[in-house]
Amino acid sequence: MSDRAAPEPPARLTRWEQRTEVPLFLAGLLFLTGYAVRVLTPHEAEPWNDLALTLVWSTWLLFLVDYVARLRLSGLGARFPRVHLLDTVVLLLPLLRPLRMVQVYQAVQRRHDRPRLNLYARVMAYAGITVGLLGLAASLAVYHLEHRAPDASIRTFGDAVWWACATLTTVGYGDATPVTFWGRVVAAGLMACGLALLGAVTGSFSSWLIQVFAREDEKRPPERG
Amino acid sequence: MSDRAAPEPPARLTRWEQRTEVPLFLAGLLFLTGYAVRVLTPHEAEPWNDLALTLVWSTWLLFLVDYVARLRLSGLGARFPRVHLLDTVVLLLPLLRPLRMVQVYQAVQRRHDRPRLNLYARVMAYAGITVGLLGLAASLAVYHLEHRAPDASIRTFGDAVWWACATLTTVGYGDATPVTFWGRVVAAGLMACGLALLGAVTGSFSSWLIQVFAREDEKRPPERG
Amino acid sequence: MSDRAAPEPPARLTRWEQRTEVPLFLAGLLFLTGYAVRVLTPHEAEPWNDLALTLVWSTWLLFLVDYVARLRLSGLGARFPRVHLLDTVVLLLPLLRPLRMVQVYQAVQRRHDRPRLNLYARVMAYAGITVGLLGLAASLAVYHLEHRAPDASIRTFGDAVWWACATLTTVGYGDATPVTFWGRVVAAGLMACGLALLGAVTGSFSSWLIQVFAREDEKRPPERG
Amino acid sequence: MSDRAAPEPPARLTRWEQRTEVPLFLAGLLFLTGYAVRVLTPHEAEPWNDLALTLVWSTWLLFLVDYVARLRLSGLGARFPRVHLLDTVVLLLPLLRPLRMVQVYQAVQRRHDRPRLNLYARVMAYAGITVGLLGLAASLAVYHLEHRAPDASIRTFGDAVWWACATLTTVGYGDATPVTFWGRVVAAGLMACGLALLGAVTGSFSSWLIQVFAREDEKRPPERG
Repeated sequence: MSDRAAPEPPARLTRWEQRTEVPLFLAGLLFLTGYAVRVLTPHEAEPWNDLALTLVWSTWLLFLVDYVARLRLSGLGARFPRVHLLDTVVLLLPLLRPLRMVQVYQAVQRRHDRPRLNLYARVMAYAGITVGLLGLAASLAVYHLEHRAPDASIRTFGDAVWWACATLTTVGYGDATPVTFWGRVVAAGLMACGLALLGAVTGSFSSWLIQVFAREDEKRPPERG
Repeated sequence: MSDRAAPEPPARLTRWEQRTEVPLFLAGLLFLTGYAVRVLTPHEAEPWNDLALTLVWSTWLLFLVDYVARLRLSGLGARFPRVHLLDTVVLLLPLLRPLRMVQVYQAVQRRHDRPRLNLYARVMAYAGITVGLLGLAASLAVYHLEHRAPDASIRTFGDAVWWACATLTTVGYGDATPVTFWGRVVAAGLMACGLALLGAVTGSFSSWLIQVFAREDEKRPPERG
Repeated sequence: MSDRAAPEPPARLTRWEQRTEVPLFLAGLLFLTGYAVRVLTPHEAEPWNDLALTLVWSTWLLFLVDYVARLRLSGLGARFPRVHLLDTVVLLLPLLRPLRMVQVYQAVQRRHDRPRLNLYARVMAYAGITVGLLGLAASLAVYHLEHRAPDASIRTFGDAVWWACATLTTVGYGDATPVTFWGRVVAAGLMACGLALLGAVTGSFSSWLIQVFAREDEKRPPERG
Repeated sequence: MSDRAAPEPPARLTRWEQRTEVPLFLAGLLFLTGYAVRVLTPHEAEPWNDLALTLVWSTWLLFLVDYVARLRLSGLGARFPRVHLLDTVVLLLPLLRPLRMVQVYQAVQRRHDRPRLNLYARVMAYAGITVGLLGLAASLAVYHLEHRAPDASIRTFGDAVWWACATLTTVGYGDATPVTFWGRVVAAGLMACGLALLGAVTGSFSSWLIQVFAREDEKRPPERG
C-alpha cells in the first residue's frame, strides 16, 4: 500500500515488472515445492533432499536478481527498500510470496482477453488462492519448527494443515497449537495476514449474494419497499 | 459463480431447471433423511436400515438422471462438468446439495406472487437455511466417521451437532473435535462453506439494522449531522 | 422481520405498543433481576427466594396480559402468533426479551427530543446493550443448568459470565463449556443471536471510523486519489 | 462518540488539545515503557524498578494536569467527566491511552503536509497500531496479574503475548487463558475493544481490495456485467 503513495515508477521498471511477474510467480511455486520436499522428506533421503535444497537456493537467487534489477531500474537508490517495503519483506521471507498475488493476477489479466469474472468473484478468487498458498506455507514452516519439540501437539504434516485450517478460519479448537517460540511467531503472522484476506473472501461473498438477490428485484416490479 | 461467466443457457435447459428444481430439492431432503436414518440407527435394525439405503440410492439415481438430462440439453457436451463445476461436485457429494438453494429459492419465488420479504431478510433466510442444512449434513457425516474412532471426542450425534454449532460460529471450544483424517476433511469443508455463508447472514443483519435506524431518521428532521 | 411484511397494524394497537413498551421493558429487567436472585441465592434463603419467585411470575403474568391485549387489538385472531413470531417466542422465553429492544429504543426516542447520537453510534448502542442483556440472561441460565452437573466446567456464576464473554466474541477458549443438553441448547441460541448482533456492533464501528476519516478528507483539498 | 454529540468546544480548549496531543501520546508510550519495566523485571532489581515507578507516576501526574486543564478550559465544570467519558476512563486506566489515537493521528496530520495514504490505508494503519498497543498493554497487565496464580497457564510474558494474539484474532486456542478474576476482566475488555478495532482493519482491507479490483475495471471497457 505504501507503493501507491510513491511517485509513478519509470516506464522501464513497469515493463520489467510486467514481463517478470509470471515467471517469478512460477519460481515462487518452485520455491514452495522445494521447501516442501526438504521439510517433508527425512534428511537422509539423499537425492531428493539435495535437489530440493538446490531448488530453494536457485529460486531465491532469482528473487535476489529481480530485486536488484528493480532497485536499479526504479532510480530510487537506497530509498527503494523503504518505499517497496512489501517486496523487501518478501525477499527475506520468500514463503510470503503469495502476498504479491495481486500483481500476478493483473499481469495475467493484461495478457489474456477472455471473458472475465464478476468483480466480487475476482476478489474471492484472488483472496482465496492467496490464503490457500499462505496457509500451505505456514503449515510447512510450523511443521518444520514444531514436529521435534518436546510436548508438541503438531507432530505430523496432517496436524499442521489441520491447525492452519482452524487458525485461518479463527475457529481455533486448540487441539493442535504451536509451542515453540518461532512456531508461535509464524502462527501470529498467519493470523494477521489470514484474517484480513479471509475477511475479504467473506465480505465479497456476502456482497455478491446481496447483489444476486437485488438483481432479481430489478427484474420484476417491487411490491413493497 | 463460474456459471455466470458461461454463455446464456438454451431455453429448453432453463425450462427443465425451473421445473425440476423443487422436486430435486425435496429429493435432496429425502436423501438427507435416508442418510440420517442409516447413520443413526444400529446396523442390525433391519427394516429401517434397508429402507434408508434404498432411499439414499434411489434419490441419488434421480440426481444422476437430472445431471445427464441437463448435460444433454445444455449442448455443452464434455465441457459441461467443467462449466457447471458446482453441479458436478454436488452430484458426487449429495450432502452438499443445500449449496444449490439459491436456484430453489428463485424457482419458488417465480411461482408464488405473495408479498415478498425485504432484500436483507431474503439473504438472511437463504443463507441461514443453507447453513442449517449444511451443518446438519456435516454433523451426520462427522458422527458417521468419528464415533467409533479410538480417542474420539465426538461419540454421540448430540456431540456432533454441538461440534457443528461451535465450528460454524467459529467459536471452536475444542471440547469436541474430529480426530480422523476424513472427519477433519469434512470439518475443513464445513469451515470454508459455513464461514462465507454465516458472514452473509451477519452482514445482512447488520445492513438491515442500519437501514431500520436510518429510515427512522428520514421521518423526522435531522438535528445534527 | 416477519412483522415488516405484515399489513399496517391498526392505530389502537400502535398506540398500545407505544404506551406499554417502556413499562414492559422495565418489567423485563425486573424479571431478569428476579430470575438472577432465584438462581444465585441458595434455595433455603427463604425471604429473598420467595420474593424473587413472586417477581418472576407476576412480571410474566404482565407479559401474558400484554400479549393477549395485542392479540385482540391487532384483529388478526389465530394468525397473530404466526405473524408476530418474535413476540410469541419472547412470551415463552422471557429471557429473550432484550431482543425487542429496537421497539423500546424507538419508543424512548419518540418521547425525548434531545440531540441524538450519530446513526452508527445508535446502532452500536442498541446492539451493544442487547448483546449485554442477552449475555447476562444466558450466563444466568447456563449457571442454573450447569453448576450441579457432574464433570461441569462452569461451577460458579463468574465462570458462566466468563464463558458468555468468550462465546459472544467467538474467541471460545474452551476452558469453560456447557456439558448438559439444555446448557448446550442455550449456548447454541446465544451463539446464533450474539453473533449477528455483535457483527452489527463491529460493522457499525468500522463504518463510523471510515466516516470519521473520510470527513477529515473533505475539509482539506485532496492531494492524491 | 459522546464527545461528538456535545456542543462545539471553546477555541482555547481546541488549541490546548492540538498542542498537547503529541506530547501526551509520547508520555503515554513512556507510561507503557515504565509499566513494562516494572512488571517484567524482578522486584529486587533496584535501580531499574525505582526509575520505572518514577516514570509511571510522573507521566500519570502529567495526564492528571492535562485533564484538569481541559476541565477548566472547557467551561463544562462538573459535567466534564460525563461528557468526556472516554477521557475520564483513560485517566483512570492509562493503559487504555491508545484508544485516543484518532486525535493523535489527526494532530500529526494537521502539522505535516506530506502526501497522505489512501482512506482505507489510513483506517487500517490507525486501527492496526491501536490494536497493537492495546494488545501490548493487555499482555503486560495479564502477565502482571496471572504469572503467580496457582494453576495459571500464563506463566511467562511470551505466553501473555501469545494469549493476546489468539484473543484479538478471536482464534482462542485455550492453551493459555487467564484464571484470576482481574485477569479475566482485562481479557473481557481486550475482547470488546480489540474485536471492534480488528473488525475495522479487516473491513477496510476488504474495501480497499475491492476498490483496487474495481479501479482496474474502469481502465478497460467492460466485456460483461
